[in-house]
Amino acid sequence: MSFDLASIPTIADTVRNKNPLVHCITNYVTVNDCANALLAIGASPVMADDLSEAEEIAEISDALVINIGTLNERTIRSMIAAGKRASALGRPVLLDPVGAGASRLRTETAAALMAAIDFTVIRGNASEIMTLAAGTGRCRGVDAIEGDTDASAFESLAESARGLAARTGAVVAVTGAVDLVTDGKRTLLVSNGHPLMARITGSGCMLSAITGGFCGAAPDRPLAAVAAAIAAMGFAGEQAAAVCSEEGTGTGSFRMHLIDRLSLLGGKALSGGMKIEAR
Amino acid sequence: MSFDLASIPTIADTVRNKNPLVHCITNYVTVNDCANALLAIGASPVMADDLSEAEEIAEISDALVINIGTLNERTIRSMIAAGKRASALGRPVLLDPVGAGASRLRTETAAALMAAIDFTVIRGNASEIMTLAAGTGRCRGVDAIEGDTDASAFESLAESARGLAARTGAVVAVTGAVDLVTDGKRTLLVSNGHPLMARITGSGCMLSAITGGFCGAAPDRPLAAVAAAIAAMGFAGEQAAAVCSEEGTGTGSFRMHLIDRLSLLGGKALSGGMKIEAR
Amino acid sequence: MSFDLASIPTIADTVRNKNPLVHCITNYVTVNDCANALLAIGASPVMADDLSEAEEIAEISDALVINIGTLNERTIRSMIAAGKRASALGRPVLLDPVGAGASRLRTETAAALMAAIDFTVIRGNASEIMTLAAGTGRCRGVDAIEGDTDASAFESLAESARGLAARTGAVVAVTGAVDLVTDGKRTLLVSNGHPLMARITGSGCMLSAITGGFCGAAPDRPLAAVAAAIAAMGFAGEQAAAVCSEEGTGTGSFRMHLIDRLSLLGGKALSGGMKIEAR
Repeated sequence: MSFDLASIPTIADTVRNKNPLVHCITNYVTVNDCANALLAIGASPVMADDLSEAEEIAEISDALVINIGTLNERTIRSMIAAGKRASALGRPVLLDPVGAGASRLRTETAAALMAAIDFTVIRGNASEIMTLAAGTGRCRGVDAIEGDTDASAFESLAESARGLAARTGAVVAVTGAVDLVTDGKRTLLVSNGHPLMARITGSGCMLSAITGGFCGAAPDRPLAAVAAAIAAMGFAGEQAAAVCSEEGTGTGSFRMHLIDRLSLLGGKALSGGMKIEAR
Repeated sequence: MSFDLASIPTIADTVRNKNPLVHCITNYVTVNDCANALLAIGASPVMADDLSEAEEIAEISDALVINIGTLNERTIRSMIAAGKRASALGRPVLLDPVGAGASRLRTETAAALMAAIDFTVIRGNASEIMTLAAGTGRCRGVDAIEGDTDASAFESLAESARGLAARTGAVVAVTGAVDLVTDGKRTLLVSNGHPLMARITGSGCMLSAITGGFCGAAPDRPLAAVAAAIAAMGFAGEQAAAVCSEEGTGTGSFRMHLIDRLSLLGGKALSGGMKIEAR
Repeated sequence: MSFDLASIPTIADTVRNKNPLVHCITNYVTVNDCANALLAIGASPVMADDLSEAEEIAEISDALVINIGTLNERTIRSMIAAGKRASALGRPVLLDPVGAGASRLRTETAAALMAAIDFTVIRGNASEIMTLAAGTGRCRGVDAIEGDTDASAFESLAESARGLAARTGAVVAVTGAVDLVTDGKRTLLVSNGHPLMARITGSGCMLSAITGGFCGAAPDRPLAAVAAAIAAMGFAGEQAAAVCSEEGTGTGSFRMHLIDRLSLLGGKALSGGMKIEAR
């Protein structure tokens, strides 16, 4: 199935023009990074996790991002209420199932969220997506690097992702050394990124947050929007790593340069830097 | 009514000399920035939001900052308890009504806090202050930039702020392209600042936090202390933006340079850089 | 009692080789810094504070760090459950009694945690450790700098720390201008560090987090692991301060350079930079 790759990077400009408001119910570890990443790409963040305002904030927002990184009973209820409301209004809703597979609470919460909400996007690492797809999978820690270099393992992962997408109707994104995005029928591979991204916390959470921003700006093109967000984050990571390499600096500087590059990125530069192929 | 503008910047030195302890019950998005901003100006932060210690921490602190950015039932109770105790002891208490107008919970919580506590300072953006002043106002998102360039709109805003100050006895600060500070009788305009401040999260929250520090150091001069804090933050923003412009860097670097400039700022430099006029 | 100081810095390399997973139940002020500090030294963080997963996450982790910086009823229960489980499995468990002495809640929670859990390490500043040791002590604020320059006061502190270590079986670390580490019999002094570390939030919390990483990598050598972590953090602080001094930058840059230096530090460099003496 053909796919117009050239139109993908223009979504970065659409974000800056539309300035979508992105409601995040997310973990307290990387919430500041998520807010700054959203502002960097030209979106606006609103963090609101209390049940008594979750639906109302979802109503005024252009997209909702649900991240279960530091979930608890109180916030799970808010996630479900906000997700149902946003979904009913046709707004893009994204799930980042942080640590699914690492504890029953996370695995079961991810399943409960998927049962209650029609997600537009599900984005996780290989073990999280395998857990959601099959009820199995091993997750050592939320920042653990997954081994996805083996070709047959990657095929199996792609198959699981396509199955999950077909079953849920969501665009499924699996991020790792190579990122895979699929709506069940079409599959895109994104090869942007840098190993330093795994050496700071928040790379995955920020990616989920800005994916919410890209989807909020292009709600009718979720597959392209997700691919654009992943390429944008990966390309920013490559540029930030290049600066660190020149400077001889470490992961503290990398984190700052990553936000810098996101804030300076436009559609034209992304068009030159993105490494996306249809498969 | 005359006002000794020249004495304002010296409060920056008073903060460093007195090292006030500032109790913050604040949101988890920007709490780290608030703590670092307080340390940067020479104050000490203590973040404590549980009801079972809220009053006790308020008692040992020189000022209290209440920020409703990610409020919930549990923390609202702590805000009220801490606020009443601090107020009863004559300590400066500041309200940052983040997102008032964006949800009933926020609007009603801001109103409930104002009913229960005698605030020394209320600081927000135009829509938040309009909401508090009139029970109306539109707030799109907590990082939304307000359009306050229209002269008659600004006059109307100033009128609302003065009314709110007169009604509550608090110094009211409305921050935007030009910042307005009033105790209901006297009004100061602060023209420091830079547009990049709206492109990172936490500019407003950090300003509220350090305003708590300035008021804790000069509790008998709230109007001057608030103006000094606003000028200090804005001047640091201008300096940070100049560094970013030279470097060609983005919002990640801006955030770091902003804290840098706060940490290096003294009364003499502020005296040269502040743009405050009595009105 | 003799102690092989030369073997201490090699633990920095063991951390990178073993990549221990460190479970943190910690405050929301500095949690991002803690996660980034752990990743910087080559460990992996997992933050999980809900009772329904606390034990399960403790089981898959190599060490547990309990930090009471923004404690509440909900998280206290999780701390006790996770601590008991980790301790039963023989995993290193560290207590950072942030603000013990500043409120009854903190003092009593620290005592309750010590009654319920066999801690491997207890790390705090002078007033926190004095509070735990004697049920007394004054703590002004969690970032307050303690006056520990007086020789007899330092002797008294050392005596209290040794007593606390003997009573609890934990390695006790008191950090200040000079850091003291003791298992009740042997005492090490660490002279690394820089005053700028007290001018950012999170220096203490990050130290506790990475101490968890060092102990997770060398669980059979807690005294050496704690000393190594303290020296590593202090040496990184010295290097970061030197960079700031050259640049003329402030505390925002210092925070970034501190993480940078942690991320670039290896056993060989630590061997050259550490200032540890047996006493």
